[in-house]
Order: sequence, then structure tokens, then C-alpha cells
Amino acid sequence: MIREELTEKILDIKREKGWTWKHITDEIGGMSPVLVIGALLGQHKLVKPLAKKAAALFGLTSAEEAMLNEVPYRGTGTSMPPTDPLIYRFYELVLVNGPAWKAIIEEEFGDGIMSAIDFNMEFEREPNPKGDRVKITMSGKFLPFKYYGNEQGIPDYGFKEA
Amino acid sequence: MIREELTEKILDIKREKGWTWKHITDEIGGMSPVLVIGALLGQHKLVKPLAKKAAALFGLTSAEEAMLNEVPYRGTGTSMPPTDPLIYRFYELVLVNGPAWKAIIEEEFGDGIMSAIDFNMEFEREPNPKGDRVKITMSGKFLPFKYYGNEQGIPDYGFKEA
Amino acid sequence: MIREELTEKILDIKREKGWTWKHITDEIGGMSPVLVIGALLGQHKLVKPLAKKAAALFGLTSAEEAMLNEVPYRGTGTSMPPTDPLIYRFYELVLVNGPAWKAIIEEEFGDGIMSAIDFNMEFEREPNPKGDRVKITMSGKFLPFKYYGNEQGIPDYGFKEA
Amino acid sequence: MIREELTEKILDIKREKGWTWKHITDEIGGMSPVLVIGALLGQHKLVKPLAKKAAALFGLTSAEEAMLNEVPYRGTGTSMPPTDPLIYRFYELVLVNGPAWKAIIEEEFGDGIMSAIDFNMEFEREPNPKGDRVKITMSGKFLPFKYYGNEQGIPDYGFKEA
Amino acid sequence: MIREELTEKILDIKREKGWTWKHITDEIGGMSPVLVIGALLGQHKLVKPLAKKAAALFGLTSAEEAMLNEVPYRGTGTSMPPTDPLIYRFYELVLVNGPAWKAIIEEEFGDGIMSAIDFNMEFEREPNPKGDRVKITMSGKFLPFKYYGNEQGIPDYGFKEA
Amino acid sequence: MIREELTEKILDIKREKGWTWKHITDEIGGMSPVLVIGALLGQHKLVKPLAKKAAALFGLTSAEEAMLNEVPYRGTGTSMPPTDPLIYRFYELVLVNGPAWKAIIEEEFGDGIMSAIDFNMEFEREPNPKGDRVKITMSGKFLPFKYYGNEQGIPDYGFKEA
Amino acid sequence: MIREELTEKILDIKREKGWTWKHITDEIGGMSPVLVIGALLGQHKLVKPLAKKAAALFGLTSAEEAMLNEVPYRGTGTSMPPTDPLIYRFYELVLVNGPAWKAIIEEEFGDGIMSAIDFNMEFEREPNPKGDRVKITMSGKFLPFKYYGNEQGIPDYGFKEA
Amino acid sequence: MIREELTEKILDIKREKGWTWKHITDEIGGMSPVLVIGALLGQHKLVKPLAKKAAALFGLTSAEEAMLNEVPYRGTGTSMPPTDPLIYRFYELVLVNGPAWKAIIEEEFGDGIMSAIDFNMEFEREPNPKGDRVKITMSGKFLPFKYYGNEQGIPDYGFKEA
Amino acid sequence: MIREELTEKILDIKREKGWTWKHITDEIGGMSPVLVIGALLGQHKLVKPLAKKAAALFGLTSAEEAMLNEVPYRGTGTSMPPTDPLIYRFYELVLVNGPAWKAIIEEEFGDGIMSAIDFNMEFEREPNPKGDRVKITMSGKFLPFKYYGNEQGIPDYGFKEA
Amino acid sequence: MIREELTEKILDIKREKGWTWKHITDEIGGMSPVLVIGALLGQHKLVKPLAKKAAALFGLTSAEEAMLNEVPYRGTGTSMPPTDPLIYRFYELVLVNGPAWKAIIEEEFGDGIMSAIDFNMEFEREPNPKGDRVKITMSGKFLPFKYYGNEQGIPDYGFKEA
Repeated sequence: MIREELTEKILDIKREKGWTWKHITDEIGGMSPVLVIGALLGQHKLVKPLAKKAAALFGLTSAEEAMLNEVPYRGTGTSMPPTDPLIYRFYELVLVNGPAWKAIIEEEFGDGIMSAIDFNMEFEREPNPKGDRVKITMSGKFLPFKYYGNEQGIPDYGFKEA
Repeated sequence: MIREELTEKILDIKREKGWTWKHITDEIGGMSPVLVIGALLGQHKLVKPLAKKAAALFGLTSAEEAMLNEVPYRGTGTSMPPTDPLIYRFYELVLVNGPAWKAIIEEEFGDGIMSAIDFNMEFEREPNPKGDRVKITMSGKFLPFKYYGNEQGIPDYGFKEA
Repeated sequence: MIREELTEKILDIKREKGWTWKHITDEIGGMSPVLVIGALLGQHKLVKPLAKKAAALFGLTSAEEAMLNEVPYRGTGTSMPPTDPLIYRFYELVLVNGPAWKAIIEEEFGDGIMSAIDFNMEFEREPNPKGDRVKITMSGKFLPFKYYGNEQGIPDYGFKEA
Repeated sequence: MIREELTEKILDIKREKGWTWKHITDEIGGMSPVLVIGALLGQHKLVKPLAKKAAALFGLTSAEEAMLNEVPYRGTGTSMPPTDPLIYRFYELVLVNGPAWKAIIEEEFGDGIMSAIDFNMEFEREPNPKGDRVKITMSGKFLPFKYYGNEQGIPDYGFKEA
Repeated sequence: MIREELTEKILDIKREKGWTWKHITDEIGGMSPVLVIGALLGQHKLVKPLAKKAAALFGLTSAEEAMLNEVPYRGTGTSMPPTDPLIYRFYELVLVNGPAWKAIIEEEFGDGIMSAIDFNMEFEREPNPKGDRVKITMSGKFLPFKYYGNEQGIPDYGFKEA
Repeated sequence: MIREELTEKILDIKREKGWTWKHITDEIGGMSPVLVIGALLGQHKLVKPLAKKAAALFGLTSAEEAMLNEVPYRGTGTSMPPTDPLIYRFYELVLVNGPAWKAIIEEEFGDGIMSAIDFNMEFEREPNPKGDRVKITMSGKFLPFKYYGNEQGIPDYGFKEA
Repeated sequence: MIREELTEKILDIKREKGWTWKHITDEIGGMSPVLVIGALLGQHKLVKPLAKKAAALFGLTSAEEAMLNEVPYRGTGTSMPPTDPLIYRFYELVLVNGPAWKAIIEEEFGDGIMSAIDFNMEFEREPNPKGDRVKITMSGKFLPFKYYGNEQGIPDYGFKEA
Repeated sequence: MIREELTEKILDIKREKGWTWKHITDEIGGMSPVLVIGALLGQHKLVKPLAKKAAALFGLTSAEEAMLNEVPYRGTGTSMPPTDPLIYRFYELVLVNGPAWKAIIEEEFGDGIMSAIDFNMEFEREPNPKGDRVKITMSGKFLPFKYYGNEQGIPDYGFKEA
Repeated sequence: MIREELTEKILDIKREKGWTWKHITDEIGGMSPVLVIGALLGQHKLVKPLAKKAAALFGLTSAEEAMLNEVPYRGTGTSMPPTDPLIYRFYELVLVNGPAWKAIIEEEFGDGIMSAIDFNMEFEREPNPKGDRVKITMSGKFLPFKYYGNEQGIPDYGFKEA
Repeated sequence: MIREELTEKILDIKREKGWTWKHITDEIGGMSPVLVIGALLGQHKLVKPLAKKAAALFGLTSAEEAMLNEVPYRGTGTSMPPTDPLIYRFYELVLVNGPAWKAIIEEEFGDGIMSAIDFNMEFEREPNPKGDRVKITMSGKFLPFKYYGNEQGIPDYGFKEA
């Protein structure tokens, strides 16, 4: 069994039952819905109690439950550049605005990155008379680039004598 | 003159003057700093009054001022996949989470996309004892996919008689 | 079940029945034929009443009907660059004329894009003694690039104090 | 001198003079503006009388005028996939709708293509209370795929005896 | 059923029967052998009477016969650059000689292309004491690039008033 | 000096003098025009006497003459896939017809290739009331794949004892 | 049946029988082992008598035997760049030394190539106290680039009058 | 001025002076040599005091000193896959061993990554009678993937009510 | 049977049994766990005694055991660039630091590479109050680039007389 | 100065002087000509005494001499796949024969590679009445893949306790 087969099975059941993602994530609970959905789509791990709930909900075998609890090879669900327009727009935001984001974050925080691992994200619907808006709030830990060697006392040179 | 040369000139002046982006965007004002920086980096247009201010600040020629007011060929500043770690992390967020974002937005809003054109974005520094966080708030207009033909009365078939 | 399998099944039935697309879209109705065909080829969603009609026509299961009503991961039907000559010619039009289209639209409308989402398209056969012509009429909403921050009062800088 | 250098020079003059494309194409006349602009951007040839007018307008040397009259190596102005959002939307239309366009054109016309060479295109602004629209009318000659051998009497086999 | 499966079936039968392409194209007749072979390999359409003959020869079902009569998504049979040496040599001819072919055709015919659609091709074996030669004769209709707008009276500008 | 600079210089002179390729190849003579043009475009070597004639015609330095006599790094003049429509059509012919060409040549000649090195090519203009045609005659030596080991007596195994 | 399936079957039998390639090529004989192995791996054709022997050895059906006698679509067994270290080292030799090989062969032989078709290759184990060496001896026919037109009398120009 | 030009200048001076990297990093000090070298090669930032020392050593202008203190667009120094054999071997280690590294780290640490930002690295020369060895010690902070939503109380669903 | 199928079977059994990699490598023993895991994931060979143990542990057939003892086509388990964040961070280390590693190793050892074949690697968990660290120790034999010809007496020139 | 500029200068001098590679490598001596040529083309390092001789021969500055003595970023001289036919044929040999080479080397030597670093190569001209042949003799040290952990006593598990 590979993860894609499990994802396909889960989507088949969702379709047959006519469930929404809201229903599914309400049932499974315990973690942000966007992560639970990501896991069911094969891009994240479900921690054990959630994998158990998911298995109960979808009637999965214990091997399938165990697979949901594994860390998948992430990033397999999106061709790059994304051909799907909804996902492409996010890609385009990075493509067009990447240099400005880099400038503004580095000026505020110094050399480093916003973590994509210690990261959370929330979606809101923003009512607007001209058309509702998708509001996304992201928050990632800033990780300063570490200039190693300037704290512990540095070796004389790149190659130490063994 | 091509836009890359203007960008290089602007960055040379910024470096020589020792200016921060904060200083520059405070001087130019009138629009979100992330957009002004993007324009100075060659990825956006500066509207006329801002191009004028930028030209005054950097001592640009009128041709250079006019170029700042042009819509550039966007997306030239970021190799894809981005080799720079700070920008790559955003790319990775799309890569890994794209399918879940698609699922969750489509369930809430229906078929469509979050606009990358009618879109705004704000950065905040989120103090945190474990390490400050980069907080980003995005808001893009939801654009419903238009099923044309179901409003105006549809032609009998794909090909009308001319 | 994945969308490609449903597309294959639909094409198998179309072939066995000897149906034309005209027959199929006349039966399903309710939306522009080019969109209905796109949906049956796995690139668009069919709204519920049309999915129902399509399911009746092709004798699909309810799960298959539900799948037709899902937004697919679009863009999977065309390798890029397209190897098929008919589709390649459209690609070539973008490749060769892209810069001129950009210049002419931006001069008329300002900074922005023609939407590919709020978009419609019609085909006509244009009789011509030298050989009939394919006439395509496209109309997409112009979406002006939004210079956010210049309306609501701008934060002093990219990073607000939290 | 290479064509990119001539394009850069023309854009420099346009910027310095503050000319619009409308002004330029009105001055040069004689052909659809989108083609004239394409030629000035290095993607098409200007026929001799138009190259002469363009040279007069921009004050070009006779070598530069001659270069405008050459067929350039087309397709150099657009990275693929296009990173510029305005051009990308056209690319996306091909990507997502290519299969349906192929189905609909082939059913109407038979096996063949819409020519990208014997092709014309017009832009209109379509006023609309919800936001003006870009209207594009394309017309390309249908070129039927030629099943050679079924007219002239076919050789017995692929390899004739010499 | 997808076209690749039909191609595989046809090749299986050819192999089991020990037929040559010459035998097959003699049986099917009606069109140049190189096109008939291309169609059986999934790259072209067989017109109805030929599809019928092919179906009779190979013992195909009526659905398979109908599929042979469909225009396939062309260009799927050759990886690019071609890894097969025989096909690569043709690719190399384009790669190395493309610029000269362009120069020589444009000087003789003007701006335009040699059609790959209204095109025919013949193979001959050229006996030669130093080793026989493959002689290929191609003939494609020259399609002049159409400078639209210079015949019918041109709109004043790119954008007409609607 | 690199070959691209020499090509650019030659094209500059051609443009300034208003020479046609016919004039140039008539002057240089001695070899098929398509090869001479290819050499002047930096894709082939000119043999010494022709390099001398070319140098005299274009007023080249002796170093430039020597460079024309060098075998260039071939294949640098054509992006792949070719973005120029004239060259792309040849690429498309390979893409779509490659498998059939392979089948037909191998059935006639056996395992091997048509040489792209011992190869010649001629262009003719084929008058035709429906539009003149480009006629191309190619002839390449067939090179049979050599099954070594079946002539000279074969080593017992892949690895001989040294 | 496709060639990959036959290759897989052959490797399954080899594994089950515990045969070495030496055993297999000794049994089949008649051609250099490296070619026989290449054919069994789906990259070359086995001439009829060898295909027969191979079929007897592996217990293949007559269709499978016929497939071994077909020229496969070569080059499908190696991803490029090769991810396998053993094969990558050969690729690297080309990558790093290509320019020097070109210089040295062209200076000795003139313009042309070493044939990869009329080519043979032998492996030897070279005992060496510092570690045995792989010794490979290749020999390919030099094919001089043919400057056509300089022997037979050249047409006046690229385009002959038809 | 762009960073590549500064790198080139620094390497020119290093070469003219005959300095080793050891000499340079001894002079600049303050941080691990591998990072200082990386910065001088344009892949890292030098903190101010080190940029000052580097500027003094190389006789740089103040603008060049400021540029050394900027975070460059990282990752521009290595083509991927790396064509240089020394760097390729590291790439190959990732390519071949990536799946095992993932398995072993995730089993020990759980879901997460080894940081490439809070990371240090040391080189040692390991004397060995069979040939000295390069010993590399890396240490990166493990960053656990954060399952947000399971700590703070989760919103009922992906989309909160605004 | 192909290697991917065997890998899938092994992972299925591991999942069903609930075994850890630690348990598996303890059972198989005899070699560094990272190599054993790599072999079970299809990227390395298991030597015979270990393949036997692995077969006993997983209940494999003798053909499967034999396959574990084969050298696989390495490098198939990691898409490049890696989409999985854990593996990507290693790729990024090469991308960003490659040039510095090259400088530092070549200055210490001279021209050559660190072998990726005569190479070993160890993982340690480094407890750290700010978060435990992954410590990796690599050691690869330095292979000096061999300047052949300067030891044995060099031939007069590249081409010897045969 | 970058290495490409030095290569260009060397080739300019070679061309102006009318020197052959044989003359140049005879003058420089000391190492196999193919390596000396590779170094002059920017793909290898020249050891000091040879760099000195080369500098004297070409009249280089001391900085240029020093650059010849540096290990360049190898592999920059060959686009991949190579567009030049002479180099492509070598690439094709790897592409088509890679799997057989892997099988035959691994059966003889076991798991490992032929070194591309401890490697030498000789060219001979093989007179042959049917056309002279290029004979290439390569010899690379076989490097056995090291199964670390099975010699020194293995840690209990992937992660040692620190």
C-alpha cells in the first residue's frame, strides 16, 4: 500500500458518504482543520489519537491507521508550478513578492527565515460588499541564521588537526 | 536602460547612503511599504506621485522616474524553486499545503480562487518568549469561477452559425 | 477512483454510443458547451443539476456524479509545452504575442490582468472562400492591481508593533 | 547589434518622449497596432514602409531600420511559464481549457488546427457596471490536416524504389 | 480504454502474426504508409474507411475502430530530446540547422512558415556503393505570416470603442 | 572573441550592405548555400578557401577568418523547444512523426540510423496554385548498428583476463 | 506487452535461477556480452538466432522472442542525469571532458564525430596493487562531416527552380 | 554593483596577493572559516565587525563593505545538479541516502527537520594509511513540526466567522 | 517484480507488525543501520548474510531475498529538488555552502573529491537545553584527482600512432 | 577576471598564432595532452610548473598563471544534453548502454563504481580501410562501495547516545 492509495480510498469514502471537510475535521478534532485535511490528503502525519479517530470514522484497517500516523514524503500533492489556478495564485505571490518579503523580514529581524515547520495558519471569511475575501493569518517562528564559531571559540582554521 | 539596471542603481544608492527600507518607504509613503519595496526591486509599478517622490529621494533622471511608473515584467526577481532559504520556505508552504488550502477554500467559498491581484498583506512582529514570530496577514478577494452560459441564455452549441 | 478514470469511462461511453459533443452538451445543457466538455474531460466542475443530467446520460454511479460536482485539480490535461499541434498553436500565440498584449492592455486599462476566472469564450465558424476560419471571442473581467495601503491609511512601516 | 538592443533603444525613446503606444501606432499606421507593437518589441517584422515610418519617428539609423524589417527569432520576449501575471492568465487558459478547445474545434472542423500564422486579433473594451471587461476577438484560418497519399495515388509502400 | 492500450494491442497482434508494416499498410491502403503507421502508433487519425479496414485486419472491436478514427493527443510517442538514436538524429538536424533553414526560407518566401499540417513526405532508398542512403522528400505549404489590419482598413487603435 | 560576436558582426555587415544570403553564398560559393549560411551563423565550419572568401567579402581580420575555419560548438542557435514558429514546425514534425519514421526506416534498412553527419539537403520552391510549397530533399547515409563481437571472434566474457 | 515487462520477466527468471550474466551470455553467445545484456535489458535488438537462443534459455513465448528481435525505443533505461552513481561517473566524464575530447578529435581527424553506431567496446579487469582498475577500450568509426555541394556541382542557390 | 562583481574582485585580490583562505580567515577571524569563506563567495552575510575587517584586508570601498554586510540572495553559487565533481558527491549523498536519513531521524526525533539555519559544521583531516579522509561534523537543531491547533483551543473550523 | 514493489511489501510488513527501524536493524545487524535501512528502501544492496536475515525477518521469498542482494539503480527514492522538507534541508546545505566546501577542501587536500562511495556516516542525538540537535559525522576518503601522464612517461601527443 | 575570460584569451592567442593543440601540449608537456587541453579550456587545474610553462607560452600575467593553477568549477563547458554532435555521441553511449555497463561491472567487481577521478584516458587513431577509427582507452580505479559498520563494530543503532 502506498500513501496515494490511502488518500484515494479516503476521498472515495468522503464522496460516497457526502461528507464535508468540516464534518470530517469536527469528528476528528484535536488539531487545526487545515492540518488534518493535509494529513488525509497524504501531506502530513496524524498523531496517534487523531489517526485512531480518523480510522474509526472512515472504517480503516489498522495498517491504514498506522500509515496515517507515518510522516509521508511531503510535497507530492502539488505539481510545480501548480497547474491548478487556486494553488497557482499562492505560487505567484511568492514569485512576484519574494524579493520584497526578503527585504522587509531581514530588515526587521536580521538574517534568518520564517520557519515553515514551527508555523501556523488560520483562514477567515471576510465579508465585503464588493465580494467576500479570503483572509489568511500566518505566523511562523523567526529562526535567526546562526553564525557558528563566534560563540564557542573558533578553531584556528577550517581543518582542525585530528 | 532595462529595469534590472535601475534596480541596481537604487540599491547602490541605498547602500551608499546607509538608508533602511523603513526610511525609504517613510519618505515615499502613500502605499503599503511591501509594495513600494517591490516596485523599487523592479516587481511592481509605482503610481506617478510615488514615482516622483522616489525619483526625488534617489536623485533619478526623468526617464528613470518614468520607468518606475511602468508595469514591469513581474516575477523576474525569484528563481524557481527559490534558492534563497527565506523565500524557499514560502514556496514550501505552497508545495506541502496547497492541496489542503484548495480543499478548505473551495468548501467555504465554492469554485474559484483567492485573487493575487486584489490582494493585500501586512507584516507584524509577534513577540514570543520562545522566539519572536513573523506574523503575516493576507487578504485576497475571492473570485468565483464563472460558469458562463448559464445566465445569458446559451447558444445551442459551441459553434454558432456566423 | 480518480478523476482520470472517470474521464476515461465517459469517453468510452461516448465512443461506444457514437455520440458527438454536440449531442452530449445539448442533453446536459445549462452552461456553455466548452465548459461542460471541459468538466467531462476532468478540468472543471459541473454544478449539481448538470452533474445529475450528465450522470443520467452516461449512466454513472452516485459517487461518479458527486465527483463530477467536485472542483478537479485543473490543468492536468495539457502537457506544457503542448505536444498536440492544435493546442500548441494557442500556446505559441501567447509565447510570441504576450509582450504586445501586455503593453496594449496595460495602456488601456492600467496595471492589472484580464481574469481567467471571470471569463467567457465563444466559438464561431467564419465561412471564408479561402478556407473557413475559427473565430473565438473571449471576454474577461479586467482586474486592476490593488495598491493596498493607499486607501485605508497605511501603517507606518511594514512591521506593525503587535 | 542584436534585436534586444534595438528594442531597448526604442523603449528608451518612448519613455523619454512620454509617448503612448497609441501615439506610436497612429504615427506608424498601416497594420494592426498589436502587430506593430509586437514588432517594436522584437517579436515581428515590420514591412518596409512601416519600418521606414518607425525609423523616422524614433530617429533610427538605416541599419536599425533594416533590422526592424527582418523577421526576428520570435518568442524571446516571454519566459515560459510566464512569470508575469497578465501573460500567465492567457497561458492558464490554454493549460486548463486546451483539451476542451481541441474537442470542440475538431468536432466542428475535423482534424486540423487553427492557424497561428494566418490569424488576426482585436481588442475591445467592454464597459460593464461590475467592472469593464477585456474583449478579444481572434480569427484564425482552419488548416485541415492533410492525409497525403489519398489523392495523388499512393506509392506501394513507404520506400519507393529509386 | 486509452490510446496507448490500443497501440499496444495492435503491436502485440503485429508481432504474433509476424506481419511487416508493409503488409499492414498494403492491406489498409488509401493513404501514405507513413501516416497509416503513425495512426496505428497513436499519433494520427485514420479516416473512417481506413479505420474500418484496420479493424478488420486486426480484429478490433467497434469501440477500438472508433478510437482509431479519433484525433489523438499527438506527440506522445517521442520523449524530447529523443533518447532513441534514430529519432535523435532528426532532432539534431533541427537543432544545428534551424537558424540556416529559417534564413533561407524567409529570404525566398518572406515571413511565414512551412506548414507541418499541409505537409507530405516520402521515403526512398537511394542505392550507393559507399552505403545506401535514406532519401526523404518533404513538401509543406508555405504559409505567409498575415499582417492583419493592412487590408481591411484598420481600427484607430488596439482598443475599439465597444 | 567568441563565435557569437563574429556572427553578430557578420549580420551587422550584411544588414548595412543590404546583401541577401543569395548574394553572399554566390560570392563565397564552393559548398551548398545552406551550409555556408549555417557557418556564417556560427553552426558550421567553413573550409579554408571558403573562409578566405568570406573574410574578403566581409572584411574580416585574419583571426576572424581563422575562427570561421574552426568547428564551433554546434547547436547554440536554437532554443529547444524552438520558440520561433518556423523552426518549431520542424521540431513538431519530429515530435509527432518520430515513431513512424523509426518504424519505416528500420523495416526497410534494419537496425541503424540515418546519419546527420553524412547528410545533404536541398530546398526547392514548388509552385502550386493553392500556394507555393517548400520542398526539401534530404539524403543521409544509412548507418547500420554494428553488433560487434559477431565478426572477429568474441571474448569469452565481458571482462577479459588482462 | 511492452518491452519493460519483458525485461522485468527476464530479470525475474535470472534471479530465480541464480544465473550470472556470464552464464547467460555464454549460453546465448554470438555477439559481445555487453550488447547481449543491453538487449536483454531492453536497449538493443537481438538478431534472430540470438533471440531464439535467448528464448530457449528463458523459456519465452514466440511473441516474446519476436519482441527481443525488435529494435526497442533506446535510451529508456537511464534517467538523465543518471541518479545511479556508477552510471553518473560516465556522465561526468562527458560533462567535464567533453570540450577537450572535441578539441583533440577534431584536430586529429577534422570536422566530424566518432560514431556511436559503428562502435565497439571491451571491458578488462586491470589488476593493480593499489586496487584493480576497470579498463574500457572503445573504438568508433570516425565519420567526417560532409560539406555537401562541394563535390557534385552546387546549385546556384538554396532554392532551385522547380 | 551586484554581489557577483564583488566576489570576483575579492577573488582577483586573493589571487594577486597569493593569499590562502586560511590566511584570509585568520585575518578576519570571529566566525567559523567556512562561513567567512561562504560570505566572501557571496552566499552569506558578514556581520559588521567582520565586514569591516574584510574591507580593510581587501581594501574595499565603504559601499563594498556595506554589501558584505547584506544578506545575499543565497544559493546562486551552485548549479543544480552540481556539475563540479567535488560538490556533486554531496548532492549524490542526499539523492541516494535521503530516504534513509528521513526514516532514521523521524524515528528518533519524531516529525520535523534538522535545521539548515541553526546549524554548524566542522571539517577535520582524518589521517589514514589508506588515504586521508575528510571528516565533517554537522550539528543542526531539530525543529519539531508543529501541530498547531492542538494547544490553544481550536477554532470550530477552518474558517472562523469574522 | 521490481524493486519498488519489494520496498512497498517490506514497508507494509513493518507497518503491520508495528516494528521500528531500530528493531529491524537490530535483528539484521552486521552493518550500519543507515545502510540497512537504505537497502530495505531500495537504495543499497544487502550483502548475502544480511539479505538472508532480512528475508527471514520479513518472510520473503528466495527471489525477493536475491533482489535485496542486488545493487539497485540508486537514487530513485528522492525527487530533486526534494519536495520533502526534511530532505530538502540537506539539499539546501549543498546549494548554499557548496562553493565554500569546495574552497576549503581543495585548499587542505588539493584537487580532488571526498568519496561518496568510501564513505561512512553516524547519527547522534545531541541533548541541548534549547532543543536537542541532530549531529551527523561523515567521513569520506579523499580521492586526489589524478593527473595522468605525469608519472608513466607521456605519449608525444593525444593521438598515438597505432 | 573569471575563468571563461582566461579561456577566451587563450583561444584568441592560439588562433592568432595559428598554433595547434599538439604544438601547445608539446610545449607545456608534463601531463597527458587531453588534461592540459582541458585545463586550458577551463575544466581542470594545471599544476604549478605546467601553469608556469603555459603562462610563458601564452604571455599571461602572473594572476592569469595563478588562475590556471586553481581548480575551476568543473563541468561548465558542456551544455547537457550536449547540443554539439561530437560530444552528444558520448552522452548517447551512456544513455543507451548505461544499464549494461552497470550490470557487467557490478558482476565482475561487485558493488561500486569506476572512479572518474583516479582515471586516465588515451586516444589512438586506428587505421581502417573502411574509414579510420577513434580508439579510446580508459582506465579507472574500481572503488568498492563501503558497507561501513561491518568492520569496526557497529553502534547499537543509528543514533548513539551522546
